[in-house]
Amino acid sequence: MGGERRFTASLQRFFGGAEHVTIGIGDDAAVVQNRGAASVVCCDPVIAGVHFTLETDLAAVGAKVVNRNLSDLAAMGAVPDWLLLSLVLPQGFAPKRLSALLRGVRRAARAAGAPVVGGDVATTSGPLVVTVSAGGHLPHRALRRDGVRPGDTLHTSGPLGGSRLGHHLRFRPALREGVWLARQPAVHAAIDVSDGLLLDLATMLAASGGLGAELDATAIPIRRAALTLAGGDRERALRHALGDGEDHVLLWSQAHGRALPRGGPLSERARRPIGRVLATPGLWLVHPGRDRRERLSPVGFEHAVGPARRRPAR
Amino acid sequence: MGGERRFTASLQRFFGGAEHVTIGIGDDAAVVQNRGAASVVCCDPVIAGVHFTLETDLAAVGAKVVNRNLSDLAAMGAVPDWLLLSLVLPQGFAPKRLSALLRGVRRAARAAGAPVVGGDVATTSGPLVVTVSAGGHLPHRALRRDGVRPGDTLHTSGPLGGSRLGHHLRFRPALREGVWLARQPAVHAAIDVSDGLLLDLATMLAASGGLGAELDATAIPIRRAALTLAGGDRERALRHALGDGEDHVLLWSQAHGRALPRGGPLSERARRPIGRVLATPGLWLVHPGRDRRERLSPVGFEHAVGPARRRPAR
Repeated sequence: MGGERRFTASLQRFFGGAEHVTIGIGDDAAVVQNRGAASVVCCDPVIAGVHFTLETDLAAVGAKVVNRNLSDLAAMGAVPDWLLLSLVLPQGFAPKRLSALLRGVRRAARAAGAPVVGGDVATTSGPLVVTVSAGGHLPHRALRRDGVRPGDTLHTSGPLGGSRLGHHLRFRPALREGVWLARQPAVHAAIDVSDGLLLDLATMLAASGGLGAELDATAIPIRRAALTLAGGDRERALRHALGDGEDHVLLWSQAHGRALPRGGPLSERARRPIGRVLATPGLWLVHPGRDRRERLSPVGFEHAVGPARRRPAR
Repeated sequence: MGGERRFTASLQRFFGGAEHVTIGIGDDAAVVQNRGAASVVCCDPVIAGVHFTLETDLAAVGAKVVNRNLSDLAAMGAVPDWLLLSLVLPQGFAPKRLSALLRGVRRAARAAGAPVVGGDVATTSGPLVVTVSAGGHLPHRALRRDGVRPGDTLHTSGPLGGSRLGHHLRFRPALREGVWLARQPAVHAAIDVSDGLLLDLATMLAASGGLGAELDATAIPIRRAALTLAGGDRERALRHALGDGEDHVLLWSQAHGRALPRGGPLSERARRPIGRVLATPGLWLVHPGRDRRERLSPVGFEHAVGPARRRPAR
């Protein structure tokens, strides 16, 4: 468990819960009750030099910060209702660039039917920081990350890896998939893959009582961009895809042998398992045709809490 | 109307509304509907060098960022339910300082019964940015800022001015007052005084169809710290108090001649008017015993949108 995850766990203990908080710190989003209606809320920033570079099209940055939040709502099975936008602008930020950023925010907000209802703007000597908070409601149950059971099969809503070649700016949050999965009793848990498959899988398994998993090397869907990055070498592309960040696909576990109903938003590929859950901790990669399974370390993209960043800005 | 207010107005038009958004961009907080339950949501950052200096006790900073948001909820008549915390830490931020900041957040959160339910943390080369989003519910109606009527009397929940001497870090959000005022039909509109009495009053009056107001120089309650800053000169202290920021008291208007019921959280001082609303635009100061009323300019604390800041950091 890295810096960010340890920090999150310590915050759970530090802040504690309350009766009207159904799901607090530690899941993709929180669930709070208001007179019998459950709201799902989350927030996530994007920061110049961390989540994008100065050369990035700012409309894409605006869409990204919204979609990062919507992806968290999707992983809870929520329908987005509203967005709050907090802008910390660097001194001398050009009005044209601000307009581009806002257009991107609006584009992603409209695509999801989640209006921007408020926010704040300030200017500093530091880099551009755009923080979005998002809220939604639950048409069905909340998809928690801590419901994984031994024997479950594992699935992702889309391919992995290569996000730095553009996907991290262009991804579509899996909102329809999230709501649909939350309606299926066979689905036990889900998480937004934002820090890399292995890291987010490890988080789910740890949250579910310390389980393990075995992934099938031939079954993990790899994004074309990951193959490009790996010079066409599928083995290298797979290693990269396992630990890449900002995939923003849903990872879920479902009861073994219980197929999900036909219809709905899932691709055929998403219905086929990429691995299965084990009763004991540890992550393994299975190569069909090889005798021995390979032990994997849960590494991926984590924002360090403290002085160092573990991966360069994109 | 300054940069920040013009920007907010342009954002209203730019982002538009939606059917389930009862109050969108432009009030102290937004009101959104979820299956018949209204949620009130807002967000507000504090930034090193803008809202506090490096010498400031970080526990006070943590409490301040929470209480700024709670003050916005108070001005809507809302009871706080949850907080989201987004931390952008400067590189090398000491764990001890982070702990102090979090202690302050927790202290203010607990005092209001609003648990921290989620958030995010990242590290940058820039200054410390702490953004809190807050959500609550409405026991009665929402206290909008656009309901002022000509002839209304004006009131504040506490004294004004001198906040830089410590009040801006130690203020208590007027949550009980806000909920109580929202229950009184005689109360027409309310706003959180964060940018200075004149500026926030001008905002209310403009939102209410372009009204004006006359303030009574002898009736405006002045914080002792404002007198200290003015070297004991009440006239100078008054000028300062009219435009000072971060008072975080409620300013409201109520029907002329309709006293509010006894009991409740209001002080005797808050029940006495500080001025009255006029049917035509303009702000005026009335000095009893002087023949002529004095024209006032709505100046106060505004975060510029663009390169310059209009007031130094505290």
